[in-house]
Amino acid sequence: MDYVLSGITQHRDRFIQELVEWLKIPSVSADPAFKNDVLHAAAYLKEQFEKAGMDNVELLPTAGYPVVYAEKITDASKPTVLVYGHYDVQPADPYELWTSPPFEPVIKTTELHPQGAIFARGACDDKGQVYMHVKALELMLSQQDLPCNIKVIIEGEEEIGSSHLGDFLKEYKEKLKADVILVSDTGIIDNETPSITNGLRGLCYMEVEVTGPNRDLHSGIYGGGVDNPLNVLCRLVGSLKDESGHITIAHFYDDVVELSAEEKAQINAGPVTVEDFEKSIGLPKSFGEQGYTLAEQLTIRPTLDVNGIWGGYTGEGAKTVLPAKAQAKISMRLVPNQSSEKIAEIFAQHFEKIAPPTVKVKVTPHHGGEPYVTPVDSVEFQAANKAMETTFGKKPLAMRNGASIPIVALFEEILGLKTVLMGFGLDSDAIHSPNEHYGLFNYFKGIETIPYFYQYYAELRQQA
Amino acid sequence: MDYVLSGITQHRDRFIQELVEWLKIPSVSADPAFKNDVLHAAAYLKEQFEKAGMDNVELLPTAGYPVVYAEKITDASKPTVLVYGHYDVQPADPYELWTSPPFEPVIKTTELHPQGAIFARGACDDKGQVYMHVKALELMLSQQDLPCNIKVIIEGEEEIGSSHLGDFLKEYKEKLKADVILVSDTGIIDNETPSITNGLRGLCYMEVEVTGPNRDLHSGIYGGGVDNPLNVLCRLVGSLKDESGHITIAHFYDDVVELSAEEKAQINAGPVTVEDFEKSIGLPKSFGEQGYTLAEQLTIRPTLDVNGIWGGYTGEGAKTVLPAKAQAKISMRLVPNQSSEKIAEIFAQHFEKIAPPTVKVKVTPHHGGEPYVTPVDSVEFQAANKAMETTFGKKPLAMRNGASIPIVALFEEILGLKTVLMGFGLDSDAIHSPNEHYGLFNYFKGIETIPYFYQYYAELRQQA
Repeated sequence: MDYVLSGITQHRDRFIQELVEWLKIPSVSADPAFKNDVLHAAAYLKEQFEKAGMDNVELLPTAGYPVVYAEKITDASKPTVLVYGHYDVQPADPYELWTSPPFEPVIKTTELHPQGAIFARGACDDKGQVYMHVKALELMLSQQDLPCNIKVIIEGEEEIGSSHLGDFLKEYKEKLKADVILVSDTGIIDNETPSITNGLRGLCYMEVEVTGPNRDLHSGIYGGGVDNPLNVLCRLVGSLKDESGHITIAHFYDDVVELSAEEKAQINAGPVTVEDFEKSIGLPKSFGEQGYTLAEQLTIRPTLDVNGIWGGYTGEGAKTVLPAKAQAKISMRLVPNQSSEKIAEIFAQHFEKIAPPTVKVKVTPHHGGEPYVTPVDSVEFQAANKAMETTFGKKPLAMRNGASIPIVALFEEILGLKTVLMGFGLDSDAIHSPNEHYGLFNYFKGIETIPYFYQYYAELRQQA
Repeated sequence: MDYVLSGITQHRDRFIQELVEWLKIPSVSADPAFKNDVLHAAAYLKEQFEKAGMDNVELLPTAGYPVVYAEKITDASKPTVLVYGHYDVQPADPYELWTSPPFEPVIKTTELHPQGAIFARGACDDKGQVYMHVKALELMLSQQDLPCNIKVIIEGEEEIGSSHLGDFLKEYKEKLKADVILVSDTGIIDNETPSITNGLRGLCYMEVEVTGPNRDLHSGIYGGGVDNPLNVLCRLVGSLKDESGHITIAHFYDDVVELSAEEKAQINAGPVTVEDFEKSIGLPKSFGEQGYTLAEQLTIRPTLDVNGIWGGYTGEGAKTVLPAKAQAKISMRLVPNQSSEKIAEIFAQHFEKIAPPTVKVKVTPHHGGEPYVTPVDSVEFQAANKAMETTFGKKPLAMRNGASIPIVALFEEILGLKTVLMGFGLDSDAIHSPNEHYGLFNYFKGIETIPYFYQYYAELRQQA
């Protein structure tokens, strides 16, 4: 497969220039002001797949933004890989914190990217990684060297919860028939330490509201006789974890799978030390569930975090209000085999149970997502493993990721397919933050690795 | 003193019409948009004192809004009473909750005010009560019946903390020389139960900030390894009171004076039951420090209330942010003999001590005020007592008020004078809230009672 590296060398400048053009489109799905730009990104991507040589490229409508579809079916006896990605991006604000405008991509070198990185919203998440697939397909199709049949779906609503993807998958279940799903929307440990994400945490996101009196009160006249909803909220939320970082909700850990020593060894094999972690985010001192290492706390243990809290007077100066209401958003990251629905239920039960009779509480669930694991001995995982070993010259580590990609559980549920998460970003690429960037090393390493995945996947399937 | 009641009867309609005009001026000191209106209120009030027959009426400048000064000195051998009030009002928002516009006064009857109440911002707090003094002085001066010398200062910054009053009192200490201070900015229990406020709580208002990482983080990637500042804030704030409603800060209660059984009996003599209290504010269940009655909890026991809290994502829907920072405003009502400065110190020490090493905390004090008690056997208290007994036909109760009037401690500190708090509002008059109102009964009862106060104060001084 020498054509891959020689193709990259030959087209390097064009591949960068095309990436720059692609990242110029401000496809912010969350903000209706960018609607035309999001639609433009879909149409633009359709064109790129056509230019790359894919067949039947089309925009499949959903109740929201369309899904870009492309395929190359060469032989019914070959396995079929379904590639998933997304062309929408997070909002870029706060704009003033960007060192260059988010939709005017520029290449700058950084400590971790001495070969240069492209700075733009979506550079890593996920437009840059999607474009690796476009270019890898272009190289493969130019050689008519396709060991697998390929189908591609790139959606435009990942950053706003993929809320129409479930219906889409159901509607096009037949059309999307495949053997495995390949996604590049994750990362590697660092450019010298390849890794493949083989597990994701799930998510259960709740909102709680504590109400006391029927209106805001004067804290002098009423203070002392009213169980202040803000004090109560603090007390209740503060009690959800104990001093050892353990979550106190009854039955919360019932379904949590304890990993084997071997699996834990893998998770702890990464190069990041506690000191590195603390330094990278300016943290006085790391803290997590006692009895687990930092790497375990971040990936294979569930969490409970307050994501937002509000109530009373929050302006300048002092106002002596005793507020009627206090609210918080609380989310829990889940691990195999916890169920987001079950956790939502026991959270609500627990919160209602610990609330004192002096207040009323309301608990409302937001979206959830299930945890996910790819078995490391599966054909698809081994194929990704071999592909990365080939292009990095080093065996990748199997890494759990603490984040959630709810669509992965959706693929399993609706399409009955496992997903391989072979992404090439770095944690330091500032996705969802100002100055998002993506290393050129990573971009080209992705383009180089993807064809090997198809190659090994077809081979290992045949052997199996 | 028959002229008082006959004067009220004769001028009743005019006294109401003048009150309406006075309340039309939107003298909101907190909002710079109303600056001209606040100044207009000062000038307008100056005119009213002149018309009432007071001498040397002037606007005394401060670094903020001016103080309206008026005097009537008739005889150096008579005692001198210094009247204090304020012509500024609280902001009126939320406007949409007013049943009639806040600066278009109208008279409506209510359950507690069958004779009618005037609805307007400032009706009770404090423009309506200030105007009682203007009209009482008018009636007294028309008879040239002045048992005391009188000085009046009406300030324009009470609702924003009276921040220039201290300097003002120091500058005009000589001019303001008097024997006692009379303030009508408090209330009575109900129109059948006269009472005089003989104690106020102090205030210590703090702001706390808990910082963890140096930026907002993704709760999936970082959750589990970071002691989330919002969780920490809840834990810390939640721990400031125990289950019995007792404040857990070391040495917090050291200086609190326990009242005698007799004093407590007075405080518990009011007609309001726990059920009344709960019903009046739609509270599921009242709660306060165990071992004390509701009336005691609300007046002679210190409190700790969260007045505001904020951090993280507080918009619609769900955002999985692990925020860098969490903040809260926390205030404590103080009782004799606590010191706001000392409590601010021990609060800060305590909060810093209980903060875990995983975060940084910053504690900032806002304004404070000292608790205050008027001895019930003092000449001034007895004078007010007799005045009310005369006009209500019933002995008033000596009541503690849970709120704070920081200027009362200031008067004692700078002028060395005790204050009599003879106000005529009701707790239900919705001061600081939409639909503030003031009963016409209360307005006229105030005009009627004030001259008796001067009368009895002069008499009792002579006897003493």
